[in-house]
Amino acid sequence: MSENTHHAMWEKLNMDLEAHDGLLEVLGKFYGDIYLSQENRLKGAEYLDFVLSEVHGLRIREIQDAKAEGRKVVGSFCVFVPEEITLAADAVHVGLCAGAEAGSELAEQLVPRNTCALIKSFIGFKLAKLCPYIESTDMIVGETTCDGKKKAYEAFNEIAPTYVMEVPQTKSEAARELWKAEVVRYMMEVEKLTGRTITAEKLKQGIKILNNRRRALQRLTSLRAASPAPISGRDALLINQISFYDDPIRFTAKINELCDELEARIKTGEGVAPAGTPRLLLSGCPMAVPNWKLPYVVESSGAVIVGEESCIGTRNSRDLVDESGETLEEMIDAIADRYMKIDCACFTPNHERLDHITALARDLKADGVIHYSLLFCQPYTHESLKVDKTLQAEGIPMLSIETDYSMEDVEQLKTRIEAFVETLA
Amino acid sequence: MSENTHHAMWEKLNMDLEAHDGLLEVLGKFYGDIYLSQENRLKGAEYLDFVLSEVHGLRIREIQDAKAEGRKVVGSFCVFVPEEITLAADAVHVGLCAGAEAGSELAEQLVPRNTCALIKSFIGFKLAKLCPYIESTDMIVGETTCDGKKKAYEAFNEIAPTYVMEVPQTKSEAARELWKAEVVRYMMEVEKLTGRTITAEKLKQGIKILNNRRRALQRLTSLRAASPAPISGRDALLINQISFYDDPIRFTAKINELCDELEARIKTGEGVAPAGTPRLLLSGCPMAVPNWKLPYVVESSGAVIVGEESCIGTRNSRDLVDESGETLEEMIDAIADRYMKIDCACFTPNHERLDHITALARDLKADGVIHYSLLFCQPYTHESLKVDKTLQAEGIPMLSIETDYSMEDVEQLKTRIEAFVETLA
Ligand code: SF4
Ligand code: SF4
Ligand code: SF4
Ligand code: SF4
Repeated sequence: MSENTHHAMWEKLNMDLEAHDGLLEVLGKFYGDIYLSQENRLKGAEYLDFVLSEVHGLRIREIQDAKAEGRKVVGSFCVFVPEEITLAADAVHVGLCAGAEAGSELAEQLVPRNTCALIKSFIGFKLAKLCPYIESTDMIVGETTCDGKKKAYEAFNEIAPTYVMEVPQTKSEAARELWKAEVVRYMMEVEKLTGRTITAEKLKQGIKILNNRRRALQRLTSLRAASPAPISGRDALLINQISFYDDPIRFTAKINELCDELEARIKTGEGVAPAGTPRLLLSGCPMAVPNWKLPYVVESSGAVIVGEESCIGTRNSRDLVDESGETLEEMIDAIADRYMKIDCACFTPNHERLDHITALARDLKADGVIHYSLLFCQPYTHESLKVDKTLQAEGIPMLSIETDYSMEDVEQLKTRIEAFVETLA
Repeated sequence: MSENTHHAMWEKLNMDLEAHDGLLEVLGKFYGDIYLSQENRLKGAEYLDFVLSEVHGLRIREIQDAKAEGRKVVGSFCVFVPEEITLAADAVHVGLCAGAEAGSELAEQLVPRNTCALIKSFIGFKLAKLCPYIESTDMIVGETTCDGKKKAYEAFNEIAPTYVMEVPQTKSEAARELWKAEVVRYMMEVEKLTGRTITAEKLKQGIKILNNRRRALQRLTSLRAASPAPISGRDALLINQISFYDDPIRFTAKINELCDELEARIKTGEGVAPAGTPRLLLSGCPMAVPNWKLPYVVESSGAVIVGEESCIGTRNSRDLVDESGETLEEMIDAIADRYMKIDCACFTPNHERLDHITALARDLKADGVIHYSLLFCQPYTHESLKVDKTLQAEGIPMLSIETDYSMEDVEQLKTRIEAFVETLA
């Protein structure tokens, strides 16, 4: 990553330059090992490599430029925060979910030891001054999804002002009303932050931009049904990760180009792994940048990943916002409805997710599923038991992995995953 | 406990008689060591001993008699389930929170390993057929409080039909509306279950009965401000535990009698520990029967417990339902409002709890606070960090304990608590 030219900017953002240089170095090496080493990669992956290499550099510069023009920056940690509304106020929306261990020890000052790695990571990144996105945000938006995040935002609010949206826990009519009220409240908060009025026209545009991003990602998902697999799971995960912080219009164009290339590949029967390589669906907790551990282990174990059933995956692109609304009220209803379809494990009951996993495994011709939960994540570890039962009944083999961001269990994971893959071959 | 005369009843309830006999034996011994060994105990404690000795016996017989008369039995695991409504339909309401390790290994078939002991206990009690209350219920009512319970009810529902109420996570106006809708929905469900119509008159009566129970418990709380402490923390906890399953009218009368005795004691300066004994407030997760481990360790370490800031403690008695309502609608509003005052750690933010703990510590002249969280309980382990900061600022020492139901850490707890108590003496 091009640290040299960006030091002055990072310094202005009050980051810990030395620790950050160390982080970038580790990341660069990690990326080289996991990504650049891949054979038969797509040409379109150049975009991914470039964006990733400039994730703390040029993209932050763009965001700083936007701020200089008077635009605001909103950061969020969950796909429940309605980005349409942020865009409608000409603000920049970035997904902040952090996927590295750096700073996690510091985090234990503010959150309990038995907290999932993702939460420790975002608290740690802030405490250790490692994340230029967090430092660039004008508002951070939390949400009451899992207990861990809900309570962590209280602590986070002490170091970075955090606005919290209430996400309901069921899908009843009353719950949907609560959620709609929260969407409206968020809209007013964004208007206050930006000093701009959200018009029907602007909101319509925001909806279109994000639906187009979703359509590009849906296109990618469906192309991965091809055999041999035309793209590696690592690259597909990276695309999903990048979708959270790159400019959505640029991202959509680039991913559509990449899909064109994929289509050409599929026609010629070209792939990243020979036909017959066991195909796996990953399902579970979101994998935030640079959490590439499990995909790397899986794809080094004789399998190829063909889908990610997670928020950094299909859960964030499956549902579109209905575009037929013309008035603000209609569009807000459409937004509320679209987000209420999210099948996060935080809901009870959450049968939809079980149906979606089964359908996705079938559509993508997966030979098996790896369910991934972060250690101490209660919603997803609970659901892993249900997913297992459901898939068993469908005759789809599943392996349940519970892990965190440390590298200590890599060998052990490799042994378990290789054994699982062997049963599928 | 008088197992001999009740075997036929337990058999009818489809319990595992052998395992249950074993449980009662352990419990009886445990109770003898922890309770009957106490010196200078109240005369009113005879009621406690009797109720406890017949907890799976006579009280179950009463409940079976009620069922024979056509009354229904509702079981719940959280102080959020509005018992007023259950009573208004002439049904029996029992609090089911389980406080023993028996069955916990079985529970890991349905809930993850990293689940709090309380949840494992209620799942385990059902799977191991150990709890005559669960087996006597016509309806079990869960609630979306913590992630652990929310998801565990989905699994529990597979072995015992469970109705779930949505408890909101904030105290906004929209959240209160959701909660009120849930109270109304619960009322309709209870009407359906019992085949009775809840009238204003019946609901008024239910509110009175429970407010009176709360008043008796409030009276007990305030008498414990006296020095020397007139009642042990163990006995006071037991009173709170019994409040969840004994008949509320009998319970209220008995506790008021016991309070009369306490008042007489206070007048003569009599206590369970010499004046000057360090006084501690327990704060945190609920301690369900027979979870007496921590109180026992504390009161064997040279301290006396003067209050329990928990759901099996002041949180369940602090707030009354406004009694001025005359119509059903007014009373439902009053009930919704009363329950929305609960300061469970599941809410965000939850400043009220911090204020309540400080005020309680002052009112009860506590020299220190022991914060108790069950291992893997995210809401309370998160809040323990906040409670600590708040109490530090108030100059009140606090010790944070994280544990479960096993006896393995008793010696280690004793060492830590003795050291803490010494700093207070
Ligand atoms: S898994 Fe749930 S809480 Fe996490 S980002 Fe997705 S919707 Fe939000
Ligand atoms: S991984 Fe689980 S515990 Fe962690 S933030 Fe997501 S839902 Fe919460
Ligand atoms: S601590 Fe919270 S979840 Fe537990 S019983 Fe009390 S109110 Fe319910
Ligand atoms: S102790 Fe904590 S984790 Fe366990 S049921 Fe209560 S609130 Fe939930």
